[in-house]
Amino acid sequence: MTKILGIDPGSRITGWGVVELVQARKPCYVASGCIRLEADTLGQKLAQLYAGLTDLIAVHQPDEVAIEQVFMARNADSALKLGQARGAAMVCVVNHGLAVAEYAATEVKQAVVGKGSADKTQVQHMVTALLSLSGRPQADAADALAIALCHAHTHGGLVAMSGQLARKRGSRWRDFKPEGY
Amino acid sequence: MTKILGIDPGSRITGWGVVELVQARKPCYVASGCIRLEADTLGQKLAQLYAGLTDLIAVHQPDEVAIEQVFMARNADSALKLGQARGAAMVCVVNHGLAVAEYAATEVKQAVVGKGSADKTQVQHMVTALLSLSGRPQADAADALAIALCHAHTHGGLVAMSGQLARKRGSRWRDFKPEGY
Repeated sequence: MTKILGIDPGSRITGWGVVELVQARKPCYVASGCIRLEADTLGQKLAQLYAGLTDLIAVHQPDEVAIEQVFMARNADSALKLGQARGAAMVCVVNHGLAVAEYAATEVKQAVVGKGSADKTQVQHMVTALLSLSGRPQADAADALAIALCHAHTHGGLVAMSGQLARKRGSRWRDFKPEGY
Repeated sequence: MTKILGIDPGSRITGWGVVELVQARKPCYVASGCIRLEADTLGQKLAQLYAGLTDLIAVHQPDEVAIEQVFMARNADSALKLGQARGAAMVCVVNHGLAVAEYAATEVKQAVVGKGSADKTQVQHMVTALLSLSGRPQADAADALAIALCHAHTHGGLVAMSGQLARKRGSRWRDFKPEGY
């Protein structure tokens, strides 16, 4: 079994989603949600993000982590804000001994919806269908699940084959309640 | 005594500089240098920056940390890269229980050179003069020292007055050799 954590970083809300891959079978939903950055200062907000991801990594013990690659930000100001959150998230993951795979938004949409130009609603819809969810996840959580699914799709075969050997930790599957939606 | 760590984050080179303030007297040079991000992946580079700053904080035990505020990046791509480094640096500082003060580049130049539009060479020159250095620091290290000096200048009086009471750690002054130039 291989657990994949998908992260959709943002300066106010960071979405996250965990899926599990058992051999080459269809990925299963584990959990998803949002980390809301509500502290007073930028430094405290980034520390909130770091602490939130640290907790998630401790609870879900992912084997692989995937994050969205940003090619085109709206403008320099939003790119800087997004970059700060992305930097804090990536350094947290790597500090916990995990590698981060990066996927362009178009790759994620292509993998999940089959169309690189799909909109957020289509992503939410397909994530709900692919993971057989009973409710629609919040938009940022759905994006994070889509990133995790994209990674599962791209590296699925390899991960499933090497997972059993490479995984040093025992199975920590628990009956997680879906969060954040 | 109050030690101030100035950080000038960058996606390839992060400059740093430590100055010490004894009461309301002129700030003294402690150390400065650069953290070069030379790993293969972005995640590893950011982890290198985090680890480098963690070491600096352990060695110099700063009381206050100052970083440059970015208003105008050249373009969205460079803003994203700068943001990632800045986010990793800020989260490192806050994770070590320190607050980060932010100063605009024009404030830093105004405080050190007396002119908000000063160029890098003027900053290097004035940092060398103000701290009575025997050699000219590398440009990124000089920028970081300028940020530390700007913080000393802005909060100097307050810091010096409260420093003796607030500081819980004993004096860890050592005869540091100037680094990075």
